[in-house]
Amino acid sequence: MTELKPIGLVYSSFKELSGMPIQPAGAVGVKGTVEVFDEYRAGLKDLDGFSHIILLYYFHRSEGFNLQVVPFMDSEPRGLFATRAPRRPNPIGLSIVQLDTVEEGVLKIQNVGILDGTPLLYIKPYAPEFDAPVKVRTGWLEAVRKTVSGRRSDWRFK
Amino acid sequence: MTELKPIGLVYSSFKELSGMPIQPAGAVGVKGTVEVFDEYRAGLKDLDGFSHIILLYYFHRSEGFNLQVVPFMDSEPRGLFATRAPRRPNPIGLSIVQLDTVEEGVLKIQNVGILDGTPLLYIKPYAPEFDAPVKVRTGWLEAVRKTVSGRRSDWRFK
Repeated sequence: MTELKPIGLVYSSFKELSGMPIQPAGAVGVKGTVEVFDEYRAGLKDLDGFSHIILLYYFHRSEGFNLQVVPFMDSEPRGLFATRAPRRPNPIGLSIVQLDTVEEGVLKIQNVGILDGTPLLYIKPYAPEFDAPVKVRTGWLEAVRKTVSGRRSDWRFK
Repeated sequence: MTELKPIGLVYSSFKELSGMPIQPAGAVGVKGTVEVFDEYRAGLKDLDGFSHIILLYYFHRSEGFNLQVVPFMDSEPRGLFATRAPRRPNPIGLSIVQLDTVEEGVLKIQNVGILDGTPLLYIKPYAPEFDAPVKVRTGWLEAVRKTVSGRRSDWRFK
């Protein structure tokens, strides 16, 4: 299959994996920057009309994976695909972030829980009618969902 | 960067790109199946508690890309990254689908707008507190958002 090719880089204040918010919900108000490489900038036209964007990026500091993991917000081992752990067979990260400005290939974003220097793969506009199902059940997360925003990552991401 | 490696396959009734729903919203009730390869099945534990999952997959029939595209629901050329067009520098597809059952590595899913035989890269549980921002603006999509569910794809996906 095709190799991934970065279209830009994500910059943030997170220089190390430990201490990072585990989800955008824990990164509310945290600012960051996306720099899209020159050759892709024409693709940014019209993006500034959107308040939120979906970013896919490459977990460049993630290595290997386990099929069962104990999530940050839990004490039970869970199936990897029932968690949001970054160590995966294809180490691709997904974040929905707030978009503030787009200027000469540089996107100012908020609610960023992404490591500084992360290679960007993909930008897509967020649209609730496509991306926000209703009547949702969230399994083991139900019990811990109210406590997530304050949690921070630790060694389990490495 | 790392090469992508499929963890399974998506099966659906869509054998050709033309005639496919352009988004899950246009695929409401359309059923499909995910088969996760043997060596990854242990990662499916606990997934059945979730009603919706995020799938990333490889657009194996997509070739090349243009930085400006005329979206299905529009008549103006838009920046590629302000659209949800599948022809991209990294041809990765993202769908949020309804999960009905998980049994021996086989996921029965609904609201599927994915081509039959598509290589699966990634399964993540959908959780509104991480994935559903509020107070959203959707740029050029605002005007056309009410009409999307009936649209079908055409030659522009090829």
